[in-house]
Amino acid sequence: MDAAANGAESLVHTLLDGGVDVCFTNPGTSEMHFVAALDRIEGMRCVLGLFEGVVTGAADGYYRMSGKPACTLLHLGPGLANGLANLHNARKAGSGIVNVVGDHATAHVALDAPLTSDIEGVARPMSHWVHTSRSADDIATDGARAVLEANAPPGRIATLILPADTAWNPVGRAPEAGSAARMAAQIAEARRRAPAEPEAVRAAAQALRGDGPTLLLLGGVALQPHALELAGRIAAKTGCTVMSEFYTARLARGAGRVAAPRLPYVIDAALKALAPFRRIVLVGTVRPVGFFAYPGKPGLLAPPGAELVTLASVDQDLEGALAALADACGATSTPPAGIPARAAAPGAALSGPLSPEGIAAVVAARLPEQAIVIDEAVTTGRGFGPATAGAAPHDWLTGMGGAIGFGLPVAVGAAIAAPDRKVLALEGDGSAMYTLQALWTIAREGLDVTTVIFANRSYKILHGELAGVGAGTPGPRATDMLTLDRPALDWVALARGMGVEAVRVDELGAFDKALRDALGRKGPALIEVVL
Amino acid sequence: MDAAANGAESLVHTLLDGGVDVCFTNPGTSEMHFVAALDRIEGMRCVLGLFEGVVTGAADGYYRMSGKPACTLLHLGPGLANGLANLHNARKAGSGIVNVVGDHATAHVALDAPLTSDIEGVARPMSHWVHTSRSADDIATDGARAVLEANAPPGRIATLILPADTAWNPVGRAPEAGSAARMAAQIAEARRRAPAEPEAVRAAAQALRGDGPTLLLLGGVALQPHALELAGRIAAKTGCTVMSEFYTARLARGAGRVAAPRLPYVIDAALKALAPFRRIVLVGTVRPVGFFAYPGKPGLLAPPGAELVTLASVDQDLEGALAALADACGATSTPPAGIPARAAAPGAALSGPLSPEGIAAVVAARLPEQAIVIDEAVTTGRGFGPATAGAAPHDWLTGMGGAIGFGLPVAVGAAIAAPDRKVLALEGDGSAMYTLQALWTIAREGLDVTTVIFANRSYKILHGELAGVGAGTPGPRATDMLTLDRPALDWVALARGMGVEAVRVDELGAFDKALRDALGRKGPALIEVVL
Repeated sequence: MDAAANGAESLVHTLLDGGVDVCFTNPGTSEMHFVAALDRIEGMRCVLGLFEGVVTGAADGYYRMSGKPACTLLHLGPGLANGLANLHNARKAGSGIVNVVGDHATAHVALDAPLTSDIEGVARPMSHWVHTSRSADDIATDGARAVLEANAPPGRIATLILPADTAWNPVGRAPEAGSAARMAAQIAEARRRAPAEPEAVRAAAQALRGDGPTLLLLGGVALQPHALELAGRIAAKTGCTVMSEFYTARLARGAGRVAAPRLPYVIDAALKALAPFRRIVLVGTVRPVGFFAYPGKPGLLAPPGAELVTLASVDQDLEGALAALADACGATSTPPAGIPARAAAPGAALSGPLSPEGIAAVVAARLPEQAIVIDEAVTTGRGFGPATAGAAPHDWLTGMGGAIGFGLPVAVGAAIAAPDRKVLALEGDGSAMYTLQALWTIAREGLDVTTVIFANRSYKILHGELAGVGAGTPGPRATDMLTLDRPALDWVALARGMGVEAVRVDELGAFDKALRDALGRKGPALIEVVL
Repeated sequence: MDAAANGAESLVHTLLDGGVDVCFTNPGTSEMHFVAALDRIEGMRCVLGLFEGVVTGAADGYYRMSGKPACTLLHLGPGLANGLANLHNARKAGSGIVNVVGDHATAHVALDAPLTSDIEGVARPMSHWVHTSRSADDIATDGARAVLEANAPPGRIATLILPADTAWNPVGRAPEAGSAARMAAQIAEARRRAPAEPEAVRAAAQALRGDGPTLLLLGGVALQPHALELAGRIAAKTGCTVMSEFYTARLARGAGRVAAPRLPYVIDAALKALAPFRRIVLVGTVRPVGFFAYPGKPGLLAPPGAELVTLASVDQDLEGALAALADACGATSTPPAGIPARAAAPGAALSGPLSPEGIAAVVAARLPEQAIVIDEAVTTGRGFGPATAGAAPHDWLTGMGGAIGFGLPVAVGAAIAAPDRKVLALEGDGSAMYTLQALWTIAREGLDVTTVIFANRSYKILHGELAGVGAGTPGPRATDMLTLDRPALDWVALARGMGVEAVRVDELGAFDKALRDALGRKGPALIEVVL
């Protein structure tokens, strides 16, 4: 570590030593010394968001695609609060993030100035680790601890609160030699994933040898290509079915990869999908539960009496666990089952009405190699899975915590983590509104993100949910609370207002053309699909 | 109370019995029974926001202008989290709000579904009262308690968490007769403000009789016209100076009203403004403190050795306290001092460059009678006070908690509380971005709100703060984190995208014309002022 003049510089050096070199930020007065330190020290890429939900969601997307934590820079309790919903999503996705939250100077907190709040209290529900630095000299140690916490598998939320005086005070303690190398070793140790227990491997192998249908249900990094391939070998050998949990932090899909279809969201469909199975082997996921509770329906989705066996939990070495399981099943050399072939490219331009099926066919046909799909299309996108199974190989990212507004921010972070890959963000109009400020960051950074807004001008999912929970059909007041059509949002204007070029389409052929245009060039674009 | 079929209906009846008849809402699945109940029961005005910060900020604005709580309807932990920053502002403003937050059904919480989080933990830092209902039968009692808590002076944040099953389960207990009348009596009791202690009145009167300059510093409802008039009488009699705290939940101003100039925000200016005073009498406010801490500068703004006397705290009867103080000073019949005369209307259209002074002159000249000004103009608006002192009588509302993004949502709530008054929202471009979704609600409800965006394309305040905290002048990375000009936001497009008609001006005469146009008719309008 280089010598640091003050606490803020000490933290920047520590973060860089710890491999944290991207900072998603929305700073205020209490963070000014940190901002100034970023000026003086080379190596940190700073990305401004105009709302904190963009900042935290971007850090989630960055982790999902890079596998390493970014830091955020947030302004006291309210700034952190604005980022909490996407921290919730990141937490459920197992994304590691180092939040740096400025606070008033230590002596100022007691004065109860307007921005004073219980920052640790705000942080705790969505953080695995929360700490307030007590002095400039503590910051190097505290920062290193935060980086290690964020790196712990599968990735954790570490929130470090930095009173302004700990940032601006001089550092008295000289940096120790070799701190970067020592930190790299500590991080490697922190990131180590425990192997599956031999007993768990034996139990899973036995379950796969049992009578009747067995499901291999995957989550976390078991949805990466090599792990999927092992699952495909096991399936070919044992006849089991391979699926993924409904929400996936990062699901490798497409032609040539073992398919792990996602569990359905809708409760009846999920129950039906799981009904055949007598045994479920869990790899990097937990027993499937309903997204919500519905009166008279079970919360646990596995059929009564089904045996659940956990091979490995989400923080363990899942590829290693599947390799051990394949070995125990004698499947190590078995050619994998369940690999979709590349779908034939459509001969001509696609056309017709804008049905979900038609949209899915266009997306499947036009998806570029190694695209990153961010799926917050809610109702419109629900059926995209089967149609896109044979598309070019890609990653499929969904909101793990169910908090709406994850999509556009995650697209920001994914695009920064993987600048050579096209990002396709599929958004409902209702969900895109929560964090639409992300479009400005996409424009500013020139990110290679194509955003598609499915404008059904409704919280359409809630029409179904109203019936699903037995609350009847909506009357005028309920309808008003579930519709966005008075006035209609003009997404072309909203996108242009933030510097993103946009077009509107209301027919499948026009969508096909607009999507090809957008995917065929580098840089931001938005397509409003009026349904 | 009418008979309720289920817990959700029971809550709606209870809220209406308690005078809570406006619901700002962004619902999800777990709130569907509450939504359905709003359909079946007459009397609740439901206002949809497309982001929860709009919802909670609107409830703040509603309380400031109506003096009574609205309720919010929010979706689990993340929905509440999105509303926290404006709950922080509301809490600091002394605004009463009843938050209704849906949760998973009680049995479902243990399953750790994606949206599960510690909702009570999320609520606590920004709430005075937090409670989770345990059964449908408890909801009437819990809801009544929440309403009483929200009504306690000066207004408190009550958060009631409603597991979905407590909403959908039938109510077994019959409603008690006369519950509405009993609740009205309980609310009247809960709202009662304690009188100033006689000893405090004596001490304040003695301070005002002392040698040297004395300041009467007002906050809360001491900034309402009658209380201000009493302060003016006391000032005329004793020679004291009258000022208000820097942030004001609702400050009555303009021609014919006793002026209570706000303390300056900038630390050096605030210290200078308070330097002359040997005694400060506090009425509905606390000792003045710096908004932030700055190295080498005091956090407490009163000059060392100044005597501070509290006449009454913000939850007490402030008008009564001032009346008692006027009596003790023999000022009851003294004509009040410090009343600005009506400024002469400008003879011709105003023109020239868009300086803060020119803008202030236009606002002062064009402000309609009884306008409600929401001031989140940050740097641009800092000097508007003196220029608008002789404008038509109006209320001036500022963000009490310092969390950015309060302005447009508060405008929504103020316009709904006071439909016959023009609302003028003065916004910085940076601050407006945090909760710009409020524009859609303004359009949907046809609210009489004129929004002025001061587009300096910068977090300009932070340029000053960077120097203020001694962090030096910004280099390229810091500049990037403090500027919004790459790309420039197009507020005309953003407004139109949400259904609000908008114009852009870059010269004072054009601003004058646009403002007259917007203020001269009913309904939403936005003016982007490019600085």
